[in-house]
Amino acid sequence: MGEANGPIERLLETLTQLPGIGPKSAERIAHFLISGDRKVAVELAEALRCVVEQIRPCRECFNLTASELCGICADSRRDAGQICVVETPRDVTLFERAGNYRGLYHVLGGRLAPLEGVGPDQLTLNPLVRRVHRGGVREVILATSPTLEGDGTALLAGNLLAGTGVSITKLARGLPAGGSLELANAQILADALAGRREL
Amino acid sequence: MGEANGPIERLLETLTQLPGIGPKSAERIAHFLISGDRKVAVELAEALRCVVEQIRPCRECFNLTASELCGICADSRRDAGQICVVETPRDVTLFERAGNYRGLYHVLGGRLAPLEGVGPDQLTLNPLVRRVHRGGVREVILATSPTLEGDGTALLAGNLLAGTGVSITKLARGLPAGGSLELANAQILADALAGRREL
Repeated sequence: MGEANGPIERLLETLTQLPGIGPKSAERIAHFLISGDRKVAVELAEALRCVVEQIRPCRECFNLTASELCGICADSRRDAGQICVVETPRDVTLFERAGNYRGLYHVLGGRLAPLEGVGPDQLTLNPLVRRVHRGGVREVILATSPTLEGDGTALLAGNLLAGTGVSITKLARGLPAGGSLELANAQILADALAGRREL
Repeated sequence: MGEANGPIERLLETLTQLPGIGPKSAERIAHFLISGDRKVAVELAEALRCVVEQIRPCRECFNLTASELCGICADSRRDAGQICVVETPRDVTLFERAGNYRGLYHVLGGRLAPLEGVGPDQLTLNPLVRRVHRGGVREVILATSPTLEGDGTALLAGNLLAGTGVSITKLARGLPAGGSLELANAQILADALAGRREL
C-alpha cells in the first residue's frame, strides 16, 4: 500500500521486531494505527517517549521505575527484612500479581549465561551483597528460574551471601498446580518426590 | 512493576488498544521495549511520528501514501484503463500481494453502513465518478467485500457509473480455493452453483 522504504514500510518493519508480532499482525496493527484519526498512534509514540526518557532502575532493587526509588522499595508497609531475588523486572510483576509476598525484591538483570557473555559482573550481585551487609535483612529468597542457568545463578548468589548470617531460601520445586501427572517430565517428578511432605 | 499511572502503565494501556494485543502480549511487548538499550522503542516512536505526519490519501485513488500521488498511480507501467474499487488501503495490499493485477485502484474508505452512520457521502464515490468521466478508463472492477454491506456499496457504485460506457465487473463468487465443500455454507454453495462454468 505504499512505496518501498516509505514510512508505512518502516512502521511495519519496526512492529515485526516486537515479540509475538509476525508480518500479518504487524500489518493489522499498522493499518489500525494509520486509519481514522490516528489518536492511538500519537498516544503510543508519546508513551514510548516517556518510557525511554523516564524509566530507569530503582536505586535499591534495580526494578524499573520512573522515580529514584521504586514504589515497592518506597512502600513502608512492605517487610524490609525479606528480599526476593529475581532475574528480571517482569518477574517482579508476576510475584506482585500472585499477591502473597509482602517483602522487597532485588532484580539481578538476568542470569549467568557464559555462552552469551553474561558473567557475574553483568548482574547486580555486588549491590545485593552490599544491601544484605547493610543489615536489617532476615531472609533472602532466591527466586531465579528453574533452569540450569537459573540454578547456577542462585548457587553463586548463595555462595556470595554465605557468612552474612541471613537465612537463604529457594523456591519450592514440584508439580505445577492445575497440571496433570501425565504432563510432568522426569525432572519435575524427581523434584516432587524429593520435596515430599507429611500430609 | 511500577507505580499506578506511571509511564509503564500508560504504555501498557496504549498497547492493549491495538488489535490482537491482550494484557499478556502487551506486558511482553512493554518489557521488551523497556529492557536493554531501548533501540526498538526509539525506532517505533520515530516510525509512528513519521506515519502520523507524512501519510495521507493519494490525490487520485485515496490509497495511503507519503507522496501526493501513490506509488501505484505514479507507476506508468500500470494499466490506467482498469480501476479496481476496494474498501480500504489494506485491500490494496492484499491484491498487490496476490500479484496478478496490473491496473489501478480506487479506495472508497469503507462501505455503506447506515446503522453506523456511513452513507454515500462518507465514501469517495464522487471522486470515482469524476475519475471515470475524465476518460481513459475501460473497466471498473467492483471489489468490495462479499457481505450485504459490501454488495450494497458495489450496487450503488455500479448505479452511479451506469451510462459512462465503461465495463463494470464484480469479483467472482464461489468456493474458496484450498477449502473443503464441508466448510462451505449455503450461500457459498449457491454462488458456486450459479456461477458454474463449462469444464
